Amino acid sequence: MPYRAPVSEIRFVLDKVVGFERVAATETFAEATPETVEAILTEAGKLSEEVLAPLNRQGDLHPARLENGIVRTSPGFADGFRAIAEGGWLGMSADPEHGGMGLPITLTMAVNEMIGSACLALQLNPLMTQGQIEALEAHASDEIKALYIPKLVSGEWCGTMNLTEPQAGSDVGALRTKAEPKGDGTYAITGQKIYISWGDNDFSENICHLVLARLPDAAPGTKGISLFMVPKKLPDENGNAGVANSLKVVSLEHKLGLHGSPTAVMQYDGATGWLIGEPHKGMAAMFTMMNNARLGVGVQGLSIAEAAMQHAIGYALERKQGRTAQEGGTILHHADVRRMVLSMKAHTFAARALAMDTAVSLDMARATGDAGWRARGAFLTPIAKAYGTDTGIEIASQGIQVHGGMGFVEETGAAQYARDVRVTAIYEGTNGIQAMDLVGRKMMDGGAAAYALLDELAVSGHSRMEDAVAELRALTAWLLEQEMQDRFAGAVPYLAAFARVLGASYHLRAAAADPARKPLAEVAVSMLLPEALAEMAKARSGAEVLYAVSDEVVAA
Amino acid sequence: MPYRAPVSEIRFVLDKVVGFERVAATETFAEATPETVEAILTEAGKLSEEVLAPLNRQGDLHPARLENGIVRTSPGFADGFRAIAEGGWLGMSADPEHGGMGLPITLTMAVNEMIGSACLALQLNPLMTQGQIEALEAHASDEIKALYIPKLVSGEWCGTMNLTEPQAGSDVGALRTKAEPKGDGTYAITGQKIYISWGDNDFSENICHLVLARLPDAAPGTKGISLFMVPKKLPDENGNAGVANSLKVVSLEHKLGLHGSPTAVMQYDGATGWLIGEPHKGMAAMFTMMNNARLGVGVQGLSIAEAAMQHAIGYALERKQGRTAQEGGTILHHADVRRMVLSMKAHTFAARALAMDTAVSLDMARATGDAGWRARGAFLTPIAKAYGTDTGIEIASQGIQVHGGMGFVEETGAAQYARDVRVTAIYEGTNGIQAMDLVGRKMMDGGAAAYALLDELAVSGHSRMEDAVAELRALTAWLLEQEMQDRFAGAVPYLAAFARVLGASYHLRAAAADPARKPLAEVAVSMLLPEALAEMAKARSGAEVLYAVSDEVVAA
Repeated sequence: MPYRAPVSEIRFVLDKVVGFERVAATETFAEATPETVEAILTEAGKLSEEVLAPLNRQGDLHPARLENGIVRTSPGFADGFRAIAEGGWLGMSADPEHGGMGLPITLTMAVNEMIGSACLALQLNPLMTQGQIEALEAHASDEIKALYIPKLVSGEWCGTMNLTEPQAGSDVGALRTKAEPKGDGTYAITGQKIYISWGDNDFSENICHLVLARLPDAAPGTKGISLFMVPKKLPDENGNAGVANSLKVVSLEHKLGLHGSPTAVMQYDGATGWLIGEPHKGMAAMFTMMNNARLGVGVQGLSIAEAAMQHAIGYALERKQGRTAQEGGTILHHADVRRMVLSMKAHTFAARALAMDTAVSLDMARATGDAGWRARGAFLTPIAKAYGTDTGIEIASQGIQVHGGMGFVEETGAAQYARDVRVTAIYEGTNGIQAMDLVGRKMMDGGAAAYALLDELAVSGHSRMEDAVAELRALTAWLLEQEMQDRFAGAVPYLAAFARVLGASYHLRAAAADPARKPLAEVAVSMLLPEALAEMAKARSGAEVLYAVSDEVVAA
Repeated sequence: MPYRAPVSEIRFVLDKVVGFERVAATETFAEATPETVEAILTEAGKLSEEVLAPLNRQGDLHPARLENGIVRTSPGFADGFRAIAEGGWLGMSADPEHGGMGLPITLTMAVNEMIGSACLALQLNPLMTQGQIEALEAHASDEIKALYIPKLVSGEWCGTMNLTEPQAGSDVGALRTKAEPKGDGTYAITGQKIYISWGDNDFSENICHLVLARLPDAAPGTKGISLFMVPKKLPDENGNAGVANSLKVVSLEHKLGLHGSPTAVMQYDGATGWLIGEPHKGMAAMFTMMNNARLGVGVQGLSIAEAAMQHAIGYALERKQGRTAQEGGTILHHADVRRMVLSMKAHTFAARALAMDTAVSLDMARATGDAGWRARGAFLTPIAKAYGTDTGIEIASQGIQVHGGMGFVEETGAAQYARDVRVTAIYEGTNGIQAMDLVGRKMMDGGAAAYALLDELAVSGHSRMEDAVAELRALTAWLLEQEMQDRFAGAVPYLAAFARVLGASYHLRAAAADPARKPLAEVAVSMLLPEALAEMAKARSGAEVLYAVSDEVVAA
């Protein structure tokens, strides 16, 4: 059951559900005509189906490995990466001034979805590079931009993000890596970073590490962090990869999944780095990079949801077991399997629409500078990240279940999806961190962004939906009145509820645009809204009941 | 963070939540005094902590493998099995006439829980053997019983179940393995069986395969299936393992988890077998074996829930990230982590109480012959199986999440729990099959068993609980009025709801017995009841909406 790129489904979501035509109508993105969109999706879909999908199991069976300090990537990954680079998919949204195509982030996300469905371990590499391009565009000097971005866009060089240290995970402010000025405008970077996705590879000429570190006069915590570009090889006078920098891969992690993606422990021993942006403003710069990367990770969840769903449906359409109402029926015609499969379809559609809706907001904010769009995109981003990845995890697990005993056998492929996708709920900020961002930072506007979204959803003309929106509005108001600790206690359920109410609304919009989608929309609403109401009930529990259980009882 | 056997917690559940004293008060189980229970749990707990838990990762890293037709088990597994056998844990509930201890199945389940937490891959072996002993006790001739059961109880021989064939999974009736009478009272068994857990090993003298096959005059479907004992080595005149039978292990599966458990494809080439029970009544005999095995698999889910929870809490008590309200706090003092950990505790407690409650019913039915107890146990069994295993899967995933990035790294151990437990929702009847059993066969009494349970739950004196019970009662009545297809469409949500309402009731009972448990009970009720109500809403959807979505739309 090979992967089929859902090009027409993506088109439908763009055109009929999330109003992509508004992006295309801006001056900034005038080139994103329907013909261009169709051509891009078709081409990227073909690459994903034909070139990348066949690599997926190779990466799982033959993990990237470290040999005498050099990372050897999985069979075929070098060719796969080259094909992605040659298609221009790395720099789709990068500035044309540096070789990019200047296309909406929405289209990058649509393309990333397909590449990720085909081979998530490999797709993580472009995702890192795309984030780096964006951070450089926003914060680097013109020289750095001119030197690095064209090579990142072309795929000659790759980019990484270096945040985490053993004692500094979700608490980035606890990092200790040092940056000492060398007197020539560069810095000596010293420290160890962990969980560096694609920290090295054997198919690009250089690896460009964006590293968070502390200057000597830095304040403690996140306010004392600066961002540095620390390339594996120092650029020579022609801007090509030259002599080796003082950094190395210490080891690669042995992971549950994403075996094809080398996850490195990096050691910097006085490596030469260049400051990106202002001193001590590294977190702000990193957030630029992380913001779209967060959406990108949400899309990774979607990628696996789609791929695992296709895989399970393919099986359910062929496997015969027991009597079914119709002659020659397969397990798809058993009510419980059908329920599972439709749950997969309901959530996958919702996750895609949510990701694309978020991306449209980001594009509109960029094209128009409008604060409303910016706030909308900022509010939706953590929801898209957490719900997309939770959905990927849940659907990959359902995919195993649909396969029965075969689902537990690795050769089937269903298990790989579940292993690969699991980390997406953790990296780029755990889903708990996303939810805390949602009820914390993203509600510092007094709930304006939340209420604006609820206003959009309020007029569905669907009574169960309207009840759910009213309940979500009441919950939002309640949360805003609580102490931060109580908000945090309800953060994950609140995010889960918001995602499901949004998801139901996308289904209703789809049904309104295309009557053939009404039956699925009805199933989706019947699943998503009860789930949303349960999460809303949980979100109201507050922190007190949690802390009323003593540590002794927890540890007992 | 080594595994600690929760002996006092199990005692609490037995004594204060599920009324085990009623079992001990019967003549049949008069030996199960509090002192005996304490001694058994303490001893089995010690074995689990000290001998078996250290084997768990070995089994994962060094899977059982097939070498020239011989299965080589993981390092230490032979010693681990011997320790289990020598402790008498294989035949705890077997008839003393054949060397067993004749103790309640409730205690076997409690011991199995701990052994499974320590090393699930190894524990699957005793579970199969225990099921075989039970099937033989119920259906085999006195000669077969006398020959096989003592050797199974002592662990000299091991037992397996052979049901599945490539075309016959959930649809057991589609199996094709043949049994030809040889004229001497034995049968020639020919066919291939798949997914045979512990189909072979290198530490027992003989492997006793219980095989479902068709006699020449068999009707099609499940009515034409008979059960045979087909030992790897034919017993000699002294009842010892003699010459090899005509059967072999063709291959072992490469699985997501449970690497230490060899999952075999078995080939029978005219192997000599002995009929167990009546001709064509093999399914009934197999159901005896599967019934307690189903509860046993539910307990496997509980095993992993407990182990993964302990592992995550151990980490959460040590890992420091970010500021917490109290000085020197760890991530356990962040509201969202606390919410996750308490959700783990709430569901694990509920799953344990449900498993033990089910086991108590089975014991009471056996001791008293009472039809009410029998019906109660039969109704609870699929709930305990599905909820126990779903809980194990969910909690293992939350355990990864609590560990953050470390959760995705295999050395941490959190991922192994998630991989190992995944199959428990599939084998011994998928959880979908369990739910269909619940709303189908287990409601052929017109709902009597369901209503009797709801009557038990109705008088909690807790208003949210009483509302939930009332809603579950109404849903039960509604389901009973529906066509079977509609019941099946709502089967999984109905089971999930019933489990959660039961779970909340166990927490309330615990809080009533011990005020120190009130805070956790409050958290548990605030989580379990909203989930139950959401599942109840889903259970009412019926089949029509599912089939209104066309196959074309599903496959699109």
